[in-house]
Amino acid sequence: MKKILVLGAGRSSSALISYLIKHAPAHDWQVTVADFSLKAAAEKINSSPYAKAIEFKIENTENSREVIRQADVVISLVPAVLHPKVALICLQEGKHLMTASYVSDEMKSLHQEAKSKGLLFLNESGLDPGIDHMSAMQVITKIKQAGGEVYSFESFTGGLIAPETAVDNPWRYKFTWNPRNVVMAGQSTAKFLQDGMFRYIPYQQLFARTTPISVPGLDEYDGYANRDSLKYAGVYGLQNCQTILRGTLRNKGYCQAWNILVQLGCCDDTFKMENVETMTHRQFMASFIGTEKNVEQEILRQFNIAGQGEEMKRLIWSGFFTNEKVGLTEGTPAQILEHILNKKWKLNPGDKDFIVMWHRFRYNQQGEMKETQAWLTATGENETHTAMAKTVGLPLAIATRLLLQNKIESRGVVIPVEDEFYNPILKELSLLGVELKEITRPIYS
Amino acid sequence: MKKILVLGAGRSSSALISYLIKHAPAHDWQVTVADFSLKAAAEKINSSPYAKAIEFKIENTENSREVIRQADVVISLVPAVLHPKVALICLQEGKHLMTASYVSDEMKSLHQEAKSKGLLFLNESGLDPGIDHMSAMQVITKIKQAGGEVYSFESFTGGLIAPETAVDNPWRYKFTWNPRNVVMAGQSTAKFLQDGMFRYIPYQQLFARTTPISVPGLDEYDGYANRDSLKYAGVYGLQNCQTILRGTLRNKGYCQAWNILVQLGCCDDTFKMENVETMTHRQFMASFIGTEKNVEQEILRQFNIAGQGEEMKRLIWSGFFTNEKVGLTEGTPAQILEHILNKKWKLNPGDKDFIVMWHRFRYNQQGEMKETQAWLTATGENETHTAMAKTVGLPLAIATRLLLQNKIESRGVVIPVEDEFYNPILKELSLLGVELKEITRPIYS
Repeated sequence: MKKILVLGAGRSSSALISYLIKHAPAHDWQVTVADFSLKAAAEKINSSPYAKAIEFKIENTENSREVIRQADVVISLVPAVLHPKVALICLQEGKHLMTASYVSDEMKSLHQEAKSKGLLFLNESGLDPGIDHMSAMQVITKIKQAGGEVYSFESFTGGLIAPETAVDNPWRYKFTWNPRNVVMAGQSTAKFLQDGMFRYIPYQQLFARTTPISVPGLDEYDGYANRDSLKYAGVYGLQNCQTILRGTLRNKGYCQAWNILVQLGCCDDTFKMENVETMTHRQFMASFIGTEKNVEQEILRQFNIAGQGEEMKRLIWSGFFTNEKVGLTEGTPAQILEHILNKKWKLNPGDKDFIVMWHRFRYNQQGEMKETQAWLTATGENETHTAMAKTVGLPLAIATRLLLQNKIESRGVVIPVEDEFYNPILKELSLLGVELKEITRPIYS
Repeated sequence: MKKILVLGAGRSSSALISYLIKHAPAHDWQVTVADFSLKAAAEKINSSPYAKAIEFKIENTENSREVIRQADVVISLVPAVLHPKVALICLQEGKHLMTASYVSDEMKSLHQEAKSKGLLFLNESGLDPGIDHMSAMQVITKIKQAGGEVYSFESFTGGLIAPETAVDNPWRYKFTWNPRNVVMAGQSTAKFLQDGMFRYIPYQQLFARTTPISVPGLDEYDGYANRDSLKYAGVYGLQNCQTILRGTLRNKGYCQAWNILVQLGCCDDTFKMENVETMTHRQFMASFIGTEKNVEQEILRQFNIAGQGEEMKRLIWSGFFTNEKVGLTEGTPAQILEHILNKKWKLNPGDKDFIVMWHRFRYNQQGEMKETQAWLTATGENETHTAMAKTVGLPLAIATRLLLQNKIESRGVVIPVEDEFYNPILKELSLLGVELKEITRPIYS
């Protein structure tokens, strides 16, 4: 019997846990779902005889060690900042670890030791990062095998809402994954390569400098640059590439309105605000605007925007100018913003989310310039079985199955850019309804 | 004999060291000046028999401990980030400590232990913070003693250049203290109280939201909010005050132009740039603008500013668009920006700096509303004997004298808001030519 430990029973865990439980009998697996909320863990396993739910706090190191010791492989869905803690225990106890999070410097530093102990620490194996790496590598490999040399690579992903969901919501957005990550998005300078030039976009410019992205058969979106694209040149084998840009997709108008919140300082997480207990939404905004009397007019004036424009429409819809109490006793601006947004951005029963991922490769194939676009979409079933949970959780679940079946040779701290990961995972994802489409055309200059 | 150890022989040390050496014979002091550059330390003591120069690196903990052990009092001018290290050794070795830096949380945490050991850890005792605290407290105390209740307190200080210095420099600014602090200025959210309302201005708005400040008999300046003014309500005894705002002064036009550098991300210190070794000034700017061809035009377009305006005049004068090599092998944007700016902002022989400090108190005196303005100016002698070095160093030097003469009773981590500090220090400063002027007038609403 193989024991799989899932840490975290939050928003992105449902499809992962369902997959593991479904395959447990055939593979003789036992699944343990651990969360700080025993109730949340219990709901996710739905009384399956192949699974058990336990209470778990990573802060309780001795108990965490005991729980991890009993597993063969650990799948961690806890917040990324806690992964080094989990990884260190896995290393000491000799357990494999799977995450959907970006490889931090701390995680990276464990590579040699994990490798020498024969352990796989697989990261960036959800949707973005995750399926984006896998699908990009599959296309890049195909292009290279056909003698092409990629000179431009762009990749954008967005976790949005389905057209039929919340039709009155002008943001065309709801929280479909960790809300905190949405509020804090973009706070580290974006770095990328464009036409051979290293480019840097700081937080204060990020949502003002968007790129229109047309996905075949879909709406046009706005894309903003995401974190450090430069480090993927080596990882993807694109050392001679002139453009490497990874980004995030939002529906039109979102970034303009979000930029107002960024500029005002509403996403600041570095200090606790005063008088939160009695604060209204309007007072929250006023603290940043500098007046309580004409908050709306001051925003229009300071940002030189129109009263009937895309920005104000969204801010008004979110209730930022009402006298409703925030409803917290303390908090940083970012925490208070998240709380206010969540009143309107929480998924309601029946709401469906919508994922769009899009890559564009431009390459020189024996003197012919060509362009391949590859994209996928996924729509959630409802507010629990989201497309986000499916596309984040299934790659991790499938990778875990492959590992337990001894089909993975990689060891150490890795991301899924080797074909032993992406070929079987993408194949199984397509059988599960998550399939990439592709179109190639010549480029006429 | 009393032994005084001065850590750091940089820009702000000259007046401090001269004062100590001058008073050494009368008080039987021995002064040791320690710097990582023995040459810098030796130059400052100028062969005085009452002083010696030594090489010193705070990173070398054992040697630091040995050097500090031999002193009676330590005056630390090292970068603020190193003060907790110095303070910890002082605590262990039972030595008094004097600094001109803001009290960090780490420093604050040492209060009880320092106090119980009978040690004075005096901080914020330079110019700003320092003379600003002392002069404000002197006026506030006087107002209170006359039955007045302060309802508004504003305080602004700037370290600028004298009108006759660098007349072609449109910024009207040069590096007269640690250049790194100038480049990194304002990166933590400014917090203050205005008309009873808590206000927050994030970095991305700070240099766009300036206040005009008229100092009697001088030019009108621009002021921007500085750090956390809120914490001084309690410290100054201004708990019922409706406006508490501390800020920084710059000459007109500076903040608008500096804001372009902030917005572009040039002051970012979180990552190292690529290709620094071959980078030109123009390429540095281009990395943030996104094009190398029309850097100037793109700035005009992106920031919606005029080609002949205040911003471009300053950026062009600083050489940001030239093909001159940066001249570093690596660096963060902030480090590279500092290096480029220093080519034009370094004090030249004969250059004089200029300090302006201005307070405005508004108060209710038995039903009469009054306003007191208090201000001081100081002009440097030359590029070494700067007004900055004088106004930062002399308060520290005088406080050290008072301490060694047993005229200071305060112990623990303190700032100079008690009259045992500000009365004698301000009195001696005025004899040394640093004198506050004051004007009071009724307010007619």
